Amino acid sequence: MKNYILKDENAVYYECGFSCDNEIYLRLGEESIFITDGRYSVEAAEKLKHTQIVKARDVVAEAAKLLQKYRIKKLHFDPNDFTVAEYDKLKNSKYTHFEAAPDFSKKRRIIKTAKEIKLLKEAARLGEEAFAQFAAYIRRHGLNQNEKRLFFECSARLSNFGQYPLSFEPIVAINENAAKPHALPTDTELKIGSLILVDAGLKHERYCSDRTRVSEYSNDLNFDKKGQSFLSSKRQKVYDTVLKAQEAAIRASKPGVRACDIDKAARDVIDKAGFGKYFVHSTGHGVGLDIHELPVISSKSETIIEENMVFTIEPGIYLPGEFGVRIEDMVKIAATRAVVL
Amino acid sequence: MKNYILKDENAVYYECGFSCDNEIYLRLGEESIFITDGRYSVEAAEKLKHTQIVKARDVVAEAAKLLQKYRIKKLHFDPNDFTVAEYDKLKNSKYTHFEAAPDFSKKRRIIKTAKEIKLLKEAARLGEEAFAQFAAYIRRHGLNQNEKRLFFECSARLSNFGQYPLSFEPIVAINENAAKPHALPTDTELKIGSLILVDAGLKHERYCSDRTRVSEYSNDLNFDKKGQSFLSSKRQKVYDTVLKAQEAAIRASKPGVRACDIDKAARDVIDKAGFGKYFVHSTGHGVGLDIHELPVISSKSETIIEENMVFTIEPGIYLPGEFGVRIEDMVKIAATRAVVL
Repeated sequence: MKNYILKDENAVYYECGFSCDNEIYLRLGEESIFITDGRYSVEAAEKLKHTQIVKARDVVAEAAKLLQKYRIKKLHFDPNDFTVAEYDKLKNSKYTHFEAAPDFSKKRRIIKTAKEIKLLKEAARLGEEAFAQFAAYIRRHGLNQNEKRLFFECSARLSNFGQYPLSFEPIVAINENAAKPHALPTDTELKIGSLILVDAGLKHERYCSDRTRVSEYSNDLNFDKKGQSFLSSKRQKVYDTVLKAQEAAIRASKPGVRACDIDKAARDVIDKAGFGKYFVHSTGHGVGLDIHELPVISSKSETIIEENMVFTIEPGIYLPGEFGVRIEDMVKIAATRAVVL
Repeated sequence: MKNYILKDENAVYYECGFSCDNEIYLRLGEESIFITDGRYSVEAAEKLKHTQIVKARDVVAEAAKLLQKYRIKKLHFDPNDFTVAEYDKLKNSKYTHFEAAPDFSKKRRIIKTAKEIKLLKEAARLGEEAFAQFAAYIRRHGLNQNEKRLFFECSARLSNFGQYPLSFEPIVAINENAAKPHALPTDTELKIGSLILVDAGLKHERYCSDRTRVSEYSNDLNFDKKGQSFLSSKRQKVYDTVLKAQEAAIRASKPGVRACDIDKAARDVIDKAGFGKYFVHSTGHGVGLDIHELPVISSKSETIIEENMVFTIEPGIYLPGEFGVRIEDMVKIAATRAVVL
């Protein structure tokens, strides 16, 4: 790919080590051009060597002008990265044929470098620590608090009181709300014996963590994966099934297998326990600068797993109106197996 | 407009009173269709009367199928609302001519109903209260805390510890960081005499508040607009100029004037004080379900102001490397003048 254009912040950061919230990055053969407005152009010039900085109010219109000026004949772009209105502006460059290359930046980022893995590992470690702190908070103060407050307190621990950005808005869901994979916080309160699901992550030097744990409220609630015990045998069976499915999928993850085989390893366990129709999403997704990257770990994904991919393994069972369980970790693919980060 | 398609969450909510994070809303003559996936289709069916609910994994592809099925000849869409990839999927409906109508939902929402104004007023009141609580926090605990921590504590008060969503990520900026209109929180610490700029808002029943205040740290810091005093005469002059500009723009806001005349009222005050080149953005923007709606209050906006528009007035002066001041309130246009919410 000789000539391409990027707008997505993380894609641009990956490309050149800098980004801001209004930018276009153009790679035209050997030439790199970073277009941004007056709020960021000084900082961009300081941080970016061997890159031409162009200051413009309308960065997309400016890109079109430059493509026209340099008479660029063919340019790759990601059709997920531009709106129809932006694309119409780009097409003002009459010389240029725009070649759609869906997810080309994400495809490039699918294998992580040693440096990236180090950052992801540290993000996961900080995430784990934050879960322990949130558990401690719940033990002391969680009783009778609503999901909205617990969502806030979870965000507080994950961000270490503002020191880290979050990977995404945490999910803190009690009982039947946990049966919604993407639950929003409500006024439902935590009671003795309530099931609580927490899905949360933070960004360490821009790299995301992602983790889900489920527990039942008591004085000694914790977010360990093993040893969770539940009052009802149904909850216990669902939890144990999801855990077994997650472990099976982690064991199935290694170089050379197809992503769909990993999904199948988890799905088989859940099917066999009779909960197949309640596992309503795919088994995992890549994690990096974006919280959702490649590979997709689903029943349809033929991607061959390779060393130094990093993705989540997160099977779940969702019983509408009752409760839901999901258990999620990030794994890194080593030479012969997956290592939990 | 007989037939149209919407994807944006707030646009869909405005249309039918419900929305979720994966949806397409189709209006085809008298017929309304809401397309979403299995996570939301039950709730959608409960909430939406006289609307056909369609469950689909790929909501955009499903929309194309329905357009084909109903042989829709012409459909309006907002080119800012769809990516190139989504638009390509829509175009699978061979019968349909897609007519670009930029911002048509925002244009429809430019005049607020009495109910909307009530919600916006309440949002603004809650925002004002939260600023007072954040000021109290700073007086007690703010000294030597960094912007990241103060950002967290600001978010905590604005959200009332998780009970309200935020309109946007707050800006909490000290001294030279306040000279960046869109500053991100850093490790800079609040010291005695530091200038602090806070720009923050919350959502009350989905309607946004937006407010900016500037003060100087001392034991009796507050975020009142009037009576702020500063140690240096330069800061004082800049603050007083921005306040005068804001008041001039509020006075200029009434039915019948052009938006650019309001912008000019603020800009003239700042120009006259010799800071014209440091007022680097426009004077305001509409506020509603989105934090940025119509009208745009800029030097180029010919929009005629009408009763029951709601927008911000927020002039600023930004001295790079030194400090910045912006003062922002929301106003509602009454019969003959603007009323601060």
